[in-house]
Amino acid sequence: MSHVDLNADMGESFGPWTMGDDNSLLGIITSANIACGFHAGDPDVMARTMARAAEHGVGIGAHPGFPDLQGFGRRNMKLPATALRNLVRYQLGAARGMAAALGLRVRHLKLHGALANMCSVDAGMARACYQGALDVDPDIIVMVLAATRQQQAAEELGCAWVGEIFADRAYNDDGTLVDRSLPGAVIHDADIAGPRILEMVKEGAIITESGKRIDTPIDTICMHGDTPEAVAIARSVRRCLEEGGVRVGMFGD
Amino acid sequence: MSHVDLNADMGESFGPWTMGDDNSLLGIITSANIACGFHAGDPDVMARTMARAAEHGVGIGAHPGFPDLQGFGRRNMKLPATALRNLVRYQLGAARGMAAALGLRVRHLKLHGALANMCSVDAGMARACYQGALDVDPDIIVMVLAATRQQQAAEELGCAWVGEIFADRAYNDDGTLVDRSLPGAVIHDADIAGPRILEMVKEGAIITESGKRIDTPIDTICMHGDTPEAVAIARSVRRCLEEGGVRVGMFGD
Amino acid sequence: MSHVDLNADMGESFGPWTMGDDNSLLGIITSANIACGFHAGDPDVMARTMARAAEHGVGIGAHPGFPDLQGFGRRNMKLPATALRNLVRYQLGAARGMAAALGLRVRHLKLHGALANMCSVDAGMARACYQGALDVDPDIIVMVLAATRQQQAAEELGCAWVGEIFADRAYNDDGTLVDRSLPGAVIHDADIAGPRILEMVKEGAIITESGKRIDTPIDTICMHGDTPEAVAIARSVRRCLEEGGVRVGMFGD
Amino acid sequence: MSHVDLNADMGESFGPWTMGDDNSLLGIITSANIACGFHAGDPDVMARTMARAAEHGVGIGAHPGFPDLQGFGRRNMKLPATALRNLVRYQLGAARGMAAALGLRVRHLKLHGALANMCSVDAGMARACYQGALDVDPDIIVMVLAATRQQQAAEELGCAWVGEIFADRAYNDDGTLVDRSLPGAVIHDADIAGPRILEMVKEGAIITESGKRIDTPIDTICMHGDTPEAVAIARSVRRCLEEGGVRVGMFGD
Repeated sequence: MSHVDLNADMGESFGPWTMGDDNSLLGIITSANIACGFHAGDPDVMARTMARAAEHGVGIGAHPGFPDLQGFGRRNMKLPATALRNLVRYQLGAARGMAAALGLRVRHLKLHGALANMCSVDAGMARACYQGALDVDPDIIVMVLAATRQQQAAEELGCAWVGEIFADRAYNDDGTLVDRSLPGAVIHDADIAGPRILEMVKEGAIITESGKRIDTPIDTICMHGDTPEAVAIARSVRRCLEEGGVRVGMFGD
Repeated sequence: MSHVDLNADMGESFGPWTMGDDNSLLGIITSANIACGFHAGDPDVMARTMARAAEHGVGIGAHPGFPDLQGFGRRNMKLPATALRNLVRYQLGAARGMAAALGLRVRHLKLHGALANMCSVDAGMARACYQGALDVDPDIIVMVLAATRQQQAAEELGCAWVGEIFADRAYNDDGTLVDRSLPGAVIHDADIAGPRILEMVKEGAIITESGKRIDTPIDTICMHGDTPEAVAIARSVRRCLEEGGVRVGMFGD
Repeated sequence: MSHVDLNADMGESFGPWTMGDDNSLLGIITSANIACGFHAGDPDVMARTMARAAEHGVGIGAHPGFPDLQGFGRRNMKLPATALRNLVRYQLGAARGMAAALGLRVRHLKLHGALANMCSVDAGMARACYQGALDVDPDIIVMVLAATRQQQAAEELGCAWVGEIFADRAYNDDGTLVDRSLPGAVIHDADIAGPRILEMVKEGAIITESGKRIDTPIDTICMHGDTPEAVAIARSVRRCLEEGGVRVGMFGD
Repeated sequence: MSHVDLNADMGESFGPWTMGDDNSLLGIITSANIACGFHAGDPDVMARTMARAAEHGVGIGAHPGFPDLQGFGRRNMKLPATALRNLVRYQLGAARGMAAALGLRVRHLKLHGALANMCSVDAGMARACYQGALDVDPDIIVMVLAATRQQQAAEELGCAWVGEIFADRAYNDDGTLVDRSLPGAVIHDADIAGPRILEMVKEGAIITESGKRIDTPIDTICMHGDTPEAVAIARSVRRCLEEGGVRVGMFGD
């Protein structure tokens, strides 16, 4: 029987500003990628988010990003490898501290925003980031964008990793995401998203817009929480998977 | 035979800006209080500073402060207890992450600047901060300003702590520091600072400006690194202590 | 015939995070206090907010605050007078630049959050802030909390000022606001807020919880935009004022 | 008789951290590019720097950069054109406010660090930035890197501009700077820098490493202040120019 994890970015509020519908998503997902204070999140938000994730039995991950709060870590920045490595060490360390204070453990690490995008096409950058995480915790599980340079970097480092695909994004034939500016790039219809993901998980392959299959381990599905229809899509995907005979649960469990 | 630790604030550079003469002080002190990125320090500075401290056999401590870079954490801020607790958890966690990445350990925690000053007269604030640190690491050694509310808070929490006095500051009869704006508040003369500290360590007491003795454990002496004469004073104090028969070394060793 | 301005804080979004219902309020108010990037707002938010305010014929004001984004400028900070003066100069200058770029003018200045609260009980702080604003623009109109040290400071400086009361807050007999933690401190009922404000404007006096009258110029009413009932209260207050024969319009017009 | 301006970046201290030898350079240069708080500088530093520049009769310019304090604005960031335009409006506005408060005027604008570098090869980016400045002040003089896309952008906008070359950097035949990692890229010898600049100013051309001449208006020479030999080079260049019959003074005067 197939098995898959559902993950979502969480704890992206900051100070007085809230973002996303964390509480609804926590009832659906099995792993939470928690912002670490550089692109979003602050110590109070992290503490609250981790506590709620634990109440829902959801696995906790660190979600480091660029030091760019105004840009929400979505603007490309060019940093030397040493700075990338230290930036991940710092944010993962902070997340581990916040988790330890609640008797919890950071199980995985996933890169955020522009940092993730740049690492998905630059294995050197990805290695610098993942090495920073492994420096802090050699047992951490790295969540990689399946079939990208992120996966290559994790394989080269020989660390524990899980492969991720997006619930609501269309794929090009080379495994990259269809550009957001193109029609059909983002799937807004819950009735389409669910069956599509079920098929990919069962096939063990990304199915591209053109219908091509890219064989790749699919360990976890990324749910978005920042669009109006996000929670509906997440519910639909989970229901489809379960009705289709896929067990939904935390990876590595 | 008496035994005392010498500590100094370190890693207070930020990005392109440098501060203090860390390299000189590392040859004199035995414990380093390393800024954690909120009032000073950044991940790169932390990594460099920790690596150098370890090379000198100097103990590593986290030195959290207010989130106020422009003010260098020296401006009073009024934060609720929960925020204080989370702010310390986060910064200590980040420091532990940076240290772990280098195979090192954060042994102690000392509060910085206005956060330290406010906690030295407000036991509730001090408890919130120290509790945040203990949440992350129950074995951490808290460095308190001897004979202040900081010490009271540590005693109430029942945690491991060491008492600190300043090498270059005069004391009032109630154990508080003489205000910097008054003459004699800061000792700039290395020949005066050394013998004065030797006497206090041997007596196990703070000796105030008026000559009064306040019995208190003196486990560590705070050296400043941000004034021109700082290194000279630090050297003089260490030499005086050693010539006076006091063993200088990391506390708890 | 009486005449009164209605003001609200605006442009308190930051980067990807939104706050308040600026668009609804812009149809009700006559002056907008626009955050300047230190406690909220960023250059893009400021540009958008100013453009919309101008479309609605709403007067533009600068709303400087403490450099504390996480705390939304609501946490007390202790800054020297020179720093306060420069902090206001900088934020007002930035706001004037953003406005000039759109062919608009910053008419007034109102202090935000903890900076405003501290200045309402400390005339020296208020003078430092207002002097900073006057240094940049001697003709700026300072919006003061009526019957507080803010008003005293403006009077001492001899600058143009307008007095403000809150639409939804109860007053103590000394003119200060009833503490938010006490019952009745915040008025959530639109049917109560409107007639209450009409009475105060007509009387030219703050009417306290106990019924006492404090004579003071009431030039503008502060509407809040960050609570669910805010827009309803704002509409009710405006309608009550207009039905009661008070002309609602920008002060100084 | 030839005439040339000497400019340097100034006010790059931040909070407790100092940078550069502003006081020495102010006795040599004729225009100061003053950091605006995003990559360096803060309101207090800006006020001090502008006051000192005015005492020396040095022209005041705004020197906006990326919002990246840790990276000192030297790390490439990818921002949309609207954000660039608003970022320049904001920083120029702030500088104008600080200057107005001292009875001074911001005469020119020069881009900093990575923002300048990116704009020197991307005319669209440069136009967005310069347009932002012109939105605030149509009379501002834009300081461009001579013979780069910055110059092209200024020409396209039809605004007032002055062309700049570097006192201590070698040029490639296409007018770009020799990469810092190559030998000879940075001129550390004051005896070489002076005559070289004199020749370029007299010729009205950049002379490249290979000896090629690129005709271009040379209105101002950029002096660096962040290297040990910077002040010596600046003095040498100024003396050489004056002894060679070039009048040194503020451009546009």
